[in-house]
Amino acid sequence: MRYEELAELAQQLRVDAVRAADAAGSGHPTSSMSAAELAAVLLARHLRYDFGDPGNPANDRLVLSKGHASPLLYALYKAAGAVDDEELLSFRRLGSRLEGHPTPRLPWVDVATGSLGQGLPVGVGMALAGKCLDRLPYRVWVLSGDSEMAEGSVWEAVEHASYEHLGNLTLIVDVNRLGQRGPTRHGHDLDAYGKRLRAFGWHTIEVDGHDVEAVDKAFTEATAADGEPGRPTAVIAATYKGRGVAAVEDQEGKHGKPLPDAKAAVAELGGQRSIRAEVRIPEVRMPPPATQVPRSGGSGPLELPRYDTGSEEATRTAYGQALAALGSARGDVVALDGEVSDSTRAEYFKKAHPERFFECYIAEQQLIAAAVGLQTRGWVPYASSFAAFLTRAYDFVRMASVSRAGINVVGSHAGVAIGQDGPSQMGLEDLAMFRAVHGSTVLYPCDANQTARLVAAMAGLGGVRYLRTTRAAAPVLYGPDEEFPVGGSRVLRRSDHDKATVVAAGTTVHEALRAADALADDGIPVRVIDLYSVKPVDVEALNDAAGATGCLLTVEDHHPEGGLGDAVADAFADGRPVPRLARLAVRNMPASATPEEQLHASGIDAESIAAAVKLLVERVVVR
Amino acid sequence: MRYEELAELAQQLRVDAVRAADAAGSGHPTSSMSAAELAAVLLARHLRYDFGDPGNPANDRLVLSKGHASPLLYALYKAAGAVDDEELLSFRRLGSRLEGHPTPRLPWVDVATGSLGQGLPVGVGMALAGKCLDRLPYRVWVLSGDSEMAEGSVWEAVEHASYEHLGNLTLIVDVNRLGQRGPTRHGHDLDAYGKRLRAFGWHTIEVDGHDVEAVDKAFTEATAADGEPGRPTAVIAATYKGRGVAAVEDQEGKHGKPLPDAKAAVAELGGQRSIRAEVRIPEVRMPPPATQVPRSGGSGPLELPRYDTGSEEATRTAYGQALAALGSARGDVVALDGEVSDSTRAEYFKKAHPERFFECYIAEQQLIAAAVGLQTRGWVPYASSFAAFLTRAYDFVRMASVSRAGINVVGSHAGVAIGQDGPSQMGLEDLAMFRAVHGSTVLYPCDANQTARLVAAMAGLGGVRYLRTTRAAAPVLYGPDEEFPVGGSRVLRRSDHDKATVVAAGTTVHEALRAADALADDGIPVRVIDLYSVKPVDVEALNDAAGATGCLLTVEDHHPEGGLGDAVADAFADGRPVPRLARLAVRNMPASATPEEQLHASGIDAESIAAAVKLLVERVVVR
Repeated sequence: MRYEELAELAQQLRVDAVRAADAAGSGHPTSSMSAAELAAVLLARHLRYDFGDPGNPANDRLVLSKGHASPLLYALYKAAGAVDDEELLSFRRLGSRLEGHPTPRLPWVDVATGSLGQGLPVGVGMALAGKCLDRLPYRVWVLSGDSEMAEGSVWEAVEHASYEHLGNLTLIVDVNRLGQRGPTRHGHDLDAYGKRLRAFGWHTIEVDGHDVEAVDKAFTEATAADGEPGRPTAVIAATYKGRGVAAVEDQEGKHGKPLPDAKAAVAELGGQRSIRAEVRIPEVRMPPPATQVPRSGGSGPLELPRYDTGSEEATRTAYGQALAALGSARGDVVALDGEVSDSTRAEYFKKAHPERFFECYIAEQQLIAAAVGLQTRGWVPYASSFAAFLTRAYDFVRMASVSRAGINVVGSHAGVAIGQDGPSQMGLEDLAMFRAVHGSTVLYPCDANQTARLVAAMAGLGGVRYLRTTRAAAPVLYGPDEEFPVGGSRVLRRSDHDKATVVAAGTTVHEALRAADALADDGIPVRVIDLYSVKPVDVEALNDAAGATGCLLTVEDHHPEGGLGDAVADAFADGRPVPRLARLAVRNMPASATPEEQLHASGIDAESIAAAVKLLVERVVVR
Repeated sequence: MRYEELAELAQQLRVDAVRAADAAGSGHPTSSMSAAELAAVLLARHLRYDFGDPGNPANDRLVLSKGHASPLLYALYKAAGAVDDEELLSFRRLGSRLEGHPTPRLPWVDVATGSLGQGLPVGVGMALAGKCLDRLPYRVWVLSGDSEMAEGSVWEAVEHASYEHLGNLTLIVDVNRLGQRGPTRHGHDLDAYGKRLRAFGWHTIEVDGHDVEAVDKAFTEATAADGEPGRPTAVIAATYKGRGVAAVEDQEGKHGKPLPDAKAAVAELGGQRSIRAEVRIPEVRMPPPATQVPRSGGSGPLELPRYDTGSEEATRTAYGQALAALGSARGDVVALDGEVSDSTRAEYFKKAHPERFFECYIAEQQLIAAAVGLQTRGWVPYASSFAAFLTRAYDFVRMASVSRAGINVVGSHAGVAIGQDGPSQMGLEDLAMFRAVHGSTVLYPCDANQTARLVAAMAGLGGVRYLRTTRAAAPVLYGPDEEFPVGGSRVLRRSDHDKATVVAAGTTVHEALRAADALADDGIPVRVIDLYSVKPVDVEALNDAAGATGCLLTVEDHHPEGGLGDAVADAFADGRPVPRLARLAVRNMPASATPEEQLHASGIDAESIAAAVKLLVERVVVR
């Protein structure tokens, strides 16, 4: 397509963005209009993408990080022949695939965007897949706003991309100088962005983003810059928000609303057009098998580590060893860690499968984003850090759910049980955080064999799967051949005369067992349930225990809100009769102490459990 | 103190760090040893701090961002005469103030550290207080590790400090080249850090961190660089981890553990010393009253906005207007926003009190960190963004709790009720996130007058206070003189024959009222509770309702986990008899639709509530 036609295509994208927002009565046409030439040139001359086969592994990846500019993306899809005009005008309506911000309900959208500063970190994950795993020549294009360059997550990604020599990654920054509420920090100072990116090792090209020829040359240069060892490129483009319509162009107060007079705006933009862009289909150049990391199958059947009952092992160690074994059986399993693999024990995987291990350093947002990016290409990621530090990446976990991403996340060093390091290192909110994510699974094993089984089971689930591990060695309770279905539980103590049920998971299972033994000695038999599947929860087992014992005491190494106690209460929140409930949890702000002192100070040790059961059985209120 | 003495003082800090970790049997002596000269020179020659009066407003601020190097900090306190040797050796023991990572249990610690990458963003908040509010000449010193420079939050702060010309801020980077698990990305390449920081507008000084004279000159230069308009300085220091003890110096695998032979190490370091550093007391140079932002009192008594019952107003608007009024009555109230003040309506405060408003751009971690920093100096911050985007800052909220920080956080655009923008913009996990924070308060008003009262009440609470607001206008239900105590609730419908209770908050209160009216027409009277205080929750009112009606239905515009439903269930989790419970919540992944369509699709509108009540009253299980 010639430059005059590209300019016309850009105007068409503007017109269609204006029309879509006008039909919806909401949306972000002005943020779309600034990037129209960038999108037109990309679509018609640089993107290699088979819209008829979005699953083609050689397709380039396009991530609209400025997700509010969705009208531009949908106009681009229309120009590519992927959606028709009727669907374009269904924008933001109930049932339409064209949501306010893009989601993977559209087959050409790999990840949901709309929380700013996520496109580049996820793009880094995709580029890692292309370079290190798929070893295919696809390019990752991330179209970003200028406002979102203030997000720290962008700079985690900038650093990571440079360090990993991701020459297959191009960031396009649409510097339209206006954020939602007013001017950005740097306005049209392209060099402000350029010098920052160059300092991190990027190749940068500054252009007039409304000059199709200049943009075309910049994209050509970006593609050519992918040499050895490879350097990511940023095309930093000066543009005007609302470009082309005088009533809104370069003006404050025009963010996120339809144009005041769409009909006049369309006329000012030269009217509707019906240009169809011929998008280049990628040459499917599969790399020679010897150079590609083998994805399907491994060296043999799954041989999980086996631990002897009665011995002691930390669940975090079982995680690392099981993951290494899973990696041997499945070539599609990859692991990522945030510079604590010696603690999370992801190091076992790293040693066994170094070509499938990704070190993300102390950048937890990039850690989760890379996992999301890798899974778009069919890899099965396990991302680990301390449970406490996963809070750093909560927005990425939340958006992973909106992206329908399948990721495994593992948080170690859960709870006060870590001991002396103190509260900054203790995961005490992680169960709440992961339970609240739509479609998530939350697992919390208490022993090494159970951990190994759950690590393997996670790989086959959808959505965000979270596994919580603990620091200290714990007795192995279960044999290596026992099974632990997700959504299940295990009854560890039971008699015909149980007076109460103690529901525990992880660390507190061992305390509950000690308490049950002490209570039995006092003539108070209690049932003990190991609720290793915190979400989904075993409603049936809890209901049975409620019927048999009349009251349930939950005990968790977590703050009282959002964790095990809430999960158990929720099992009865469907109108059925509810047993009496009581909960022990970490209600204090911990300090430094030994693990045993911590459990005692927080009132979740065996002694506290036994005391609470006695009160509960005597019908005294326990709070 | 002369250079030879400074070198001796550095050795003393090493010796004491080694001894403290040895006594504890855990801790991070090697990470302390790398920064011994940096700490010694700072303490003895540059810090202006009255250890006898930590509340002196003119004191410099010292933030140990690499909080795991706490033995160094405690050794420094000992050298300053603030703690004695006996207390030093209580490190990490139960009851000791010398926790594994520093917390404000020590009067000289302003904020807890230990989650890396937080010291600089919080230091930015302190420096903003010094420059823009207190207008006092104190300096903020942040001692950071090199590994943590990978955290995006650091770069949010680097950008913010430069943009705000925080010449009163000095970052000291202890480049010891080794992270927890191995080498950092940049090793001893000081210029890798320097060029990045310079690109963001910082003044940088690269030094040998073990050369006390060079360090002294660097700190002098940093202090002198504080001209107009002011530029933050980074002292980038090459050091060796474990410096001074051959068994550990510059070696991998020596992170986070006591030295193998502490006695030999102390001997190698020249033995114990008892040098006492004379720390400079700050000249108390209070600025002329005319230049200082007046902290106490405002222009008059609190005159909250008043809304007419029956009119309509969005709670987010009431937030902004009430905060502006509060700012007029209280000179210590400040506001911060993440580039969405036109949406959160913090803009009302900004217009009324521009000198106390802080624009943080799209950098939510810096937003919360700045609030934490400001409150260390007695300011009362209100930080706002979309509820959805506060997930970006969860680790900072968590650490604010460990810091015993008093901050107000306000999340707008809660729930599916926002409508067309879709799930990326919907706060659906925020109640879970904030409830799980230790010592937090969670408020969720349904009308404008209630919002205004709660905004005022928040200022007087401790800990993390969260207020959830909604986008759309809603009917004003309450008069402007009604009171809404934190921990309370309001009964909006009640009869002597109520067959069930509907518990709602925010958006769903209005749906519950519509449902109650429809049910009353069908001969099914129900009680309706407005549970505006989600934490603490009104146990008494819920218990009364349970006794009177036998069953409770919660309805919330939030995912089912961790929010209103869990809060209500928790009210009965103390062994008392539990009513039948059912919950309506957002169990779907929303897409774009109108607010009304969203509430219906998620099953939380009036129609869904009425249907659920009928099932509950007929004792059908509702799930």
